[in-house]
Amino acid sequence: MVKTAVKKSNPVKGGGSPVKLLARRPELRPFTQAEMEGRAERARKLMTKYKLDAVMVTSEPNLEYLSGFMSQFPWASPSRPWYFVLPRVGQPTAVIPETGVTNWRATSWVKDMSQILTWPSPRPENEGLDLLESVFKKVRSKYGRIGFEIGPESRLAMAPADLLRIVKKIKPFKMADCVPVLRDLRFVKSPAEIARIKRAADIAADAFDDLPAMVEQGDTESDVGRKFAAHMLLGGADKTPYTAFGSGTPSYDSIIMGPTSRKLRKGDVFLIDTGCRYAGYHCDFDRNIAIGEPTDEVKKIHDLLYRSVEAGIAACVPGNTAEDLFYAQAKVLEDAGIVIGTVGRFGHGLGKNMTEYPSNKPGDTAVLVPGAVMTIEPSAMFQGDKMLVHEENVLITEGKPKLLSRRAVREMPVVRW
Amino acid sequence: MVKTAVKKSNPVKGGGSPVKLLARRPELRPFTQAEMEGRAERARKLMTKYKLDAVMVTSEPNLEYLSGFMSQFPWASPSRPWYFVLPRVGQPTAVIPETGVTNWRATSWVKDMSQILTWPSPRPENEGLDLLESVFKKVRSKYGRIGFEIGPESRLAMAPADLLRIVKKIKPFKMADCVPVLRDLRFVKSPAEIARIKRAADIAADAFDDLPAMVEQGDTESDVGRKFAAHMLLGGADKTPYTAFGSGTPSYDSIIMGPTSRKLRKGDVFLIDTGCRYAGYHCDFDRNIAIGEPTDEVKKIHDLLYRSVEAGIAACVPGNTAEDLFYAQAKVLEDAGIVIGTVGRFGHGLGKNMTEYPSNKPGDTAVLVPGAVMTIEPSAMFQGDKMLVHEENVLITEGKPKLLSRRAVREMPVVRW
Repeated sequence: MVKTAVKKSNPVKGGGSPVKLLARRPELRPFTQAEMEGRAERARKLMTKYKLDAVMVTSEPNLEYLSGFMSQFPWASPSRPWYFVLPRVGQPTAVIPETGVTNWRATSWVKDMSQILTWPSPRPENEGLDLLESVFKKVRSKYGRIGFEIGPESRLAMAPADLLRIVKKIKPFKMADCVPVLRDLRFVKSPAEIARIKRAADIAADAFDDLPAMVEQGDTESDVGRKFAAHMLLGGADKTPYTAFGSGTPSYDSIIMGPTSRKLRKGDVFLIDTGCRYAGYHCDFDRNIAIGEPTDEVKKIHDLLYRSVEAGIAACVPGNTAEDLFYAQAKVLEDAGIVIGTVGRFGHGLGKNMTEYPSNKPGDTAVLVPGAVMTIEPSAMFQGDKMLVHEENVLITEGKPKLLSRRAVREMPVVRW
Repeated sequence: MVKTAVKKSNPVKGGGSPVKLLARRPELRPFTQAEMEGRAERARKLMTKYKLDAVMVTSEPNLEYLSGFMSQFPWASPSRPWYFVLPRVGQPTAVIPETGVTNWRATSWVKDMSQILTWPSPRPENEGLDLLESVFKKVRSKYGRIGFEIGPESRLAMAPADLLRIVKKIKPFKMADCVPVLRDLRFVKSPAEIARIKRAADIAADAFDDLPAMVEQGDTESDVGRKFAAHMLLGGADKTPYTAFGSGTPSYDSIIMGPTSRKLRKGDVFLIDTGCRYAGYHCDFDRNIAIGEPTDEVKKIHDLLYRSVEAGIAACVPGNTAEDLFYAQAKVLEDAGIVIGTVGRFGHGLGKNMTEYPSNKPGDTAVLVPGAVMTIEPSAMFQGDKMLVHEENVLITEGKPKLLSRRAVREMPVVRW
């Protein structure tokens, strides 16, 4: 027997471990049964509104949202699809791989074995399609339409050819889009959902607070990115799906790539834009750090972006639209003659996806309501391809907007080498 | 100006940082231009074989594989689709969001601006569809068929309704499946790809070696899972998409769920099954750890699984099929009267996905060839719902199979509390 025991003299402190937790916070999961049943009830009302007899979801955010099922497995291994069907009238059914029953029942609110159908997946020639057919045969038809994940921003988690095979089998039902139902549902967050987003934001904010101390001479973007992501895990994040990194002198030229093997150096400004995940919810904000004093131009634009964010946050009130958030932020920059960045929008919805409906851009007239969570994210270009970006996360309430991210300090933190 | 400087007395060692890198390994990226062009050439030959005039890819593994483009962004933010079209005859074209050009040109082998078309995404009403139409209009038609990601294990990274809109616009081209092309391409790994899988496996193996020391009294599954994932990041992983956790007395009952808030205790056996990611490639293996002496039954089954893995590895030779790998592993267990687990297969292909074609299961007659990388993964049930699983990663060569994971020790490591 190989005995690789924890040192007996110090078993509780785990003196032998090369990594240590940075925080122990109380768990905020799972959701209550009442919350999950409430989602199903709201979904049914929206199905009536959008004339759907049922919705079927497969993707991580929608499957988790409607069924409560939580697992890393389906999203790391595409071999097996997982389906959840919620009819407008009657009980939902899970159609899942045999190997997933324990995981399903431990996490979903739909635990009754009569509502869980399984097959021995992987079986590419028939990945549960006959079971799905039997489920749809029992759906009460009023509109003759079943909603699938086919509309904007959908990421179907099954083979599209299999979806088309199902649609042929369930005639006279027609394939429709379930995105309007899920979009409306997920747009308004419950207090329990908001607490999870806040938790993710707190974890990231703690890592950002320690970020200057994590930057060592000789570090590459990747080195710092790894330490930053590890900090979030050790601080309580479940996942660190996004730690984008930009660096350059006097600033960076992309906010969506990296971390690369570029070495950080004096004169740089760098940015980490992160969305860590806690209990199925994300934060999404960034911070800028200078290595040595930033240039006057950088300082000026940084301050304009700070003020642009202030204007964006102030506009986060019910009745305003997503495009109003864009115009509020853009005005501060344009009044100062700044060229707006090429990101394509100045923020977006936030929740089960790191970016979700709507987009803060001209033409998006989605109306803000209490419970919506938005990012405020102005970007500015200078010297041709250089850019600076700020971002915060904001909850819309009946009253004043509430910051979920810990507000950036007004002047850019400086690491002195 | 806020001055959160690294301590000046000790700037290089970063004494103030709460997390430290555990390893600095040389980078193995990017791929050479020759390797990328070679992939395109092999793809073209396979297009002829499968009668396709072009393939279009959108998903993380396929887009990265064919275009070389690397970014966390499209996979964390579903707001914008990214497309890459490779015709059987002629040059490839990227159709990407405007904000992505810098990232694209920094990572893809297709850098010429004449081959990069952009639009100001997000724009849900037309996410680059007109640009795609113009690209397909120029494709030389011999077979009248364009391959899209619609077949087995596909995870299309665009709205399926938009795919159907494109297909209508490009008649007389018909929608076909590009999976056979990508499956055949990706099945045989190059030396550079194998080096990346090996790197991911080394990073995970180092974390597994330190795992017993990471387990502290009072820890939950989540606590240990977070330390383990952070160890992999600090050891050089880019991402830790999968750190599944099972624990229980005398063993666990699922290998795909967790980590949960269950506290580990004396008498437990726990498992971490992990696939970390390095430079776009994964490992996928697991290790079992006992807290206190395991039961005789657990020891016996653990040893049978060890021998089952040995048999599976020995069967990893060219000419054998995926189902041969299953039968080789299963025979050891069945000869000992063990009930085979419900995972549905005894391993699978490994590479850009943590699980990919083929499956080690009866009926999968995919023939192993040098350059294929497979997992060997027998599972055994006992006491009704209890299970034990082993897993290793193996490269098929002209000669003997080559282990990519560091072989588990024969007897289960024990943490003594």
